[in-house]
Amino acid sequence: MNASPLIDRRNLDFMLYELLGVDRLTRYPRFADHGRETFDAAIELAHQIAVAKFYPHNRKGDLNEPKMVDGKVELIPEIAEAMDAFNEAGFAALLADASDGGMQLPFVIASTCDCMFSAANPGTVAYPALARAAANLLAVYGTEEQQRLYMKPIHEGRYYGTMCLSEPQAGSSLADITTQAAPQADGSYRLTGAKMWISAGDHELGDNIVHLVLARIAGAPAGVKGISLFIVPRWRVNADGTRAARNDVKLAGVNHKMGQRGSVNTFLKFGEAGDCHGYLVGEANQGLAYMFHMMNEERIGVGMGAILQGQVGYLHSLQYARERRQGRHADQKDPSSAPIALIEHADVRRMLLSQKSWVEGALALGFYASQLVDFAHDEDPAVRRDSALLLEVLTPIVKAWGSEYSLKANDLAIQILGGYGYTREYPVEQCYRDNRINPIHEGTNGIQALDLLGRKAMMQNGGALRLLLQRIAAGCQDASALPELQPLALQLLAGVKLAEEATQAVAKRLLSGEVRLALANAQHYMTLLGHLSIGWMWLQSAVIAQRALPSANSVDTDFYRGKLQACRFFFASELPQIELAAKLVREAEDSAYAMDEAWF
Amino acid sequence: MNASPLIDRRNLDFMLYELLGVDRLTRYPRFADHGRETFDAAIELAHQIAVAKFYPHNRKGDLNEPKMVDGKVELIPEIAEAMDAFNEAGFAALLADASDGGMQLPFVIASTCDCMFSAANPGTVAYPALARAAANLLAVYGTEEQQRLYMKPIHEGRYYGTMCLSEPQAGSSLADITTQAAPQADGSYRLTGAKMWISAGDHELGDNIVHLVLARIAGAPAGVKGISLFIVPRWRVNADGTRAARNDVKLAGVNHKMGQRGSVNTFLKFGEAGDCHGYLVGEANQGLAYMFHMMNEERIGVGMGAILQGQVGYLHSLQYARERRQGRHADQKDPSSAPIALIEHADVRRMLLSQKSWVEGALALGFYASQLVDFAHDEDPAVRRDSALLLEVLTPIVKAWGSEYSLKANDLAIQILGGYGYTREYPVEQCYRDNRINPIHEGTNGIQALDLLGRKAMMQNGGALRLLLQRIAAGCQDASALPELQPLALQLLAGVKLAEEATQAVAKRLLSGEVRLALANAQHYMTLLGHLSIGWMWLQSAVIAQRALPSANSVDTDFYRGKLQACRFFFASELPQIELAAKLVREAEDSAYAMDEAWF
Repeated sequence: MNASPLIDRRNLDFMLYELLGVDRLTRYPRFADHGRETFDAAIELAHQIAVAKFYPHNRKGDLNEPKMVDGKVELIPEIAEAMDAFNEAGFAALLADASDGGMQLPFVIASTCDCMFSAANPGTVAYPALARAAANLLAVYGTEEQQRLYMKPIHEGRYYGTMCLSEPQAGSSLADITTQAAPQADGSYRLTGAKMWISAGDHELGDNIVHLVLARIAGAPAGVKGISLFIVPRWRVNADGTRAARNDVKLAGVNHKMGQRGSVNTFLKFGEAGDCHGYLVGEANQGLAYMFHMMNEERIGVGMGAILQGQVGYLHSLQYARERRQGRHADQKDPSSAPIALIEHADVRRMLLSQKSWVEGALALGFYASQLVDFAHDEDPAVRRDSALLLEVLTPIVKAWGSEYSLKANDLAIQILGGYGYTREYPVEQCYRDNRINPIHEGTNGIQALDLLGRKAMMQNGGALRLLLQRIAAGCQDASALPELQPLALQLLAGVKLAEEATQAVAKRLLSGEVRLALANAQHYMTLLGHLSIGWMWLQSAVIAQRALPSANSVDTDFYRGKLQACRFFFASELPQIELAAKLVREAEDSAYAMDEAWF
Repeated sequence: MNASPLIDRRNLDFMLYELLGVDRLTRYPRFADHGRETFDAAIELAHQIAVAKFYPHNRKGDLNEPKMVDGKVELIPEIAEAMDAFNEAGFAALLADASDGGMQLPFVIASTCDCMFSAANPGTVAYPALARAAANLLAVYGTEEQQRLYMKPIHEGRYYGTMCLSEPQAGSSLADITTQAAPQADGSYRLTGAKMWISAGDHELGDNIVHLVLARIAGAPAGVKGISLFIVPRWRVNADGTRAARNDVKLAGVNHKMGQRGSVNTFLKFGEAGDCHGYLVGEANQGLAYMFHMMNEERIGVGMGAILQGQVGYLHSLQYARERRQGRHADQKDPSSAPIALIEHADVRRMLLSQKSWVEGALALGFYASQLVDFAHDEDPAVRRDSALLLEVLTPIVKAWGSEYSLKANDLAIQILGGYGYTREYPVEQCYRDNRINPIHEGTNGIQALDLLGRKAMMQNGGALRLLLQRIAAGCQDASALPELQPLALQLLAGVKLAEEATQAVAKRLLSGEVRLALANAQHYMTLLGHLSIGWMWLQSAVIAQRALPSANSVDTDFYRGKLQACRFFFASELPQIELAAKLVREAEDSAYAMDEAWF
């Protein structure tokens, strides 16, 4: 039985080592000093700190959302304590070079560590997550001085960071941002504008906050090609790294959210007093490209965060279903017989298996995609190229499919707990509320679907998608060697064909200029490729389980049988849904597209 | 353009008068004094009071949930003001006989009036809804004296009521309730026990609260056959109707819920001091039968309440999508062009049409089922019998499908609003939270599905279901006379056949004794019959729209085209889902059923 409220550790080992073989990453020079022991030690330490310092105030953070008092953000003190533990253990520098004092871990192991914190407390985790995102960007595009002044203190846990993209009038549409940056004689800029939805946008946790801000330099082209990226520190920093005067960045308001209440989400005004200093990152007008360079990793991070909330809800509802006794079987007529455990009811098992098949399937895909990031260190350029292509096509799936189905999982967790699940005394309703942001932020799921169909499936003349479908077909080939799995392999292979046909139909329509109609069913395309990819993960898991069964001990036998059964469940009741999705895409079903606004 | 934030009034007229012809109910003597004018006047008055007195404090009630202070429940004052307006206008006696001062309205019109209040404020509406439920039960099963002492004051708006079924250890499983009732020499009883999840269980709104309590008389048979129903007033009542001493009913706690925070949900203790007076309703051991007699109407009420929240979210997201400008079409490359309204994006239209097709389809089915209640007044026994049978089979669908899909609708409403939808500054997140209870209470949706497949579809040797399928087939016949709708009619007819086959397969399995496996896919059966019934409502609506189009004015032309397009949308992307559902039921897919507990 799983002992952690955050994660199924046996399952994690299965995914990392049996399914993905991440220990083989140590063949790359960058990770040569690591091994399964150091990976496991990092994961174990993350789990310990998550359980001891993040999990206990998850509910308290929800009940005591950040307040704006005298222009400052007030957080509950447990958040600072959690961050102290996190920073002391070096988790602010998981990915950073060892020479810079970092852990220099593979991305997939860093993702695994992150899983612990975001499972424990998705509100508090926003503070280090945004800081790391800023540091990662500066690690690639910052000058040496910018790295010294702004990135290194983040790695040391002294500074925090934000990503300031959205504005009140421009959320999804970054082409329309209007924040201005005026060049100064000293090479710096003065920024003026307002930014909305800024997570961790103001607080007193560290010594400083490094805002990374998208803005336009006067005379820049319209749209996304005229956006530049700036460092805007909350406190200006002297050349020796000491703190100088407060910069002209004003906390204008905090947003009151459905969930993730522990993390402050802010409305910021830059340059209200005309004195907001900013420093250009890289070249002018390349800001969005820099942001998008980090986007795959950020989006996988959002997907993984969502999936972890799905997992927390699943584990809780599973435990509840084992313990709570309620009702009897329909053919169990004696009212004096003892009530049965919820898990005995077939419909409760359906709800548990739905959660398991969605969450564990998505988790596997998330780890798979994370490891693709690490394959950038391979010496073979073909491996690097293929991994990058696969990452392009899988990223929107991990983000959108992962967040959509983990939210559905949370909904079922509430349902299993019944009235208790609807109360704030049990954690599952908070899981749902916390998780509900994930289909929205970091690019809405609608935008992910358009990205998948309009860009990723079409890129390199369909090359990225072809690569994914080839990998899936190879998985089918592998599975069909096992008689027990052959029917599932054939089913998945038929899905590959559906995806090919649907994609070709869209490509043809795009070529003929019917762009809007061709992309109108992007959401169904997401379902098609999402279910196909998750089916692929399940089939691979089933292959491993089937092969491992004969020599497994009794605990592992149960575990592997669970994997096989969840795979069968997914193939029976989930995977067939791709047929309708493929048909709608292929035939360019147009009832929504052709609905006139006046008819609503 | 629709002006009300609560309801689309044009659509309401369409459903009541064009689709259902509820004005024809005035042919029954009970409703002979009514006409469309009095129906509309009642609906209009309900709408006015809902907008003026219920809607304005919907958010305030959410933000200021009832508190327990010195053993009493504290509500925001707006709730009492709303109830004053409600009671003064006579809405506490919508259904009651005119001779008792009631409005003597048909159930379907009463449902319509209720729609206004529950759309406006699902929290506050709990107080009158529970009171009416208690009064309705006493109207049928109470003695004349019980009616005088406990029912009439509810009709007058002076007393409130509750339904006390669940206990902490027995929510879904009423067979296991343990509250005891000890007979006294004077014919009354002394009750001892605890009741959980009691909505409107304690408050200071009226002069008294009439608790209807399920309990066991000592020596009663085990299980549901040993449950009796008792009146337990909060304050005892003298024979002349004046208030006597406080009864021994204690508020032991209030539950803190995800939503519906304006309505107090309580944990009550009966007879802690050994002096809780109760009065038997009807005969001993018949309590559950009495409760179930009212169950269809209560469950339709829950379904309708859910659907109305779906409608409120839909209307809000529709308005937002018309006003908010964001992004451009994929083929609109000029970044200096003006951003388009959200509603221009095909994927936003998909999310709007999904909401429209679910919510309006379910609303039509809810009104259809409500009118079946009124057909009990028909002089033709065949009409009465058929209506009762149809009501049996449609009730779990209205409750479960209605609440499941209206919640999905709320989820899409949030998605359309994006980050704003996730904040508590916009109403859609509250819609979702308020609505999330509806798949749980009044019998969970899992229980509804079991009721539908195990009981309703099998009752009278399948007669109730056959009747429904015949009606749907007749609708297909009607529609196939219109060339534009013929393909849809054929599609729906194919669905009828799928439902027949799936039902027969289950019946066969039940006969062979495979009860648990036969019922294991009840949820998929709910999807099958739910989608089929909703498709039927849409096809009927399309027939009316198609026939009305040639002579319609321009506003109505848009309205009817919207109906036709939503019908097409539902048939293209929703209805085909029944194929998989039917297959899983027919083949008794067993992967969840056969999943061993140890494998999770």
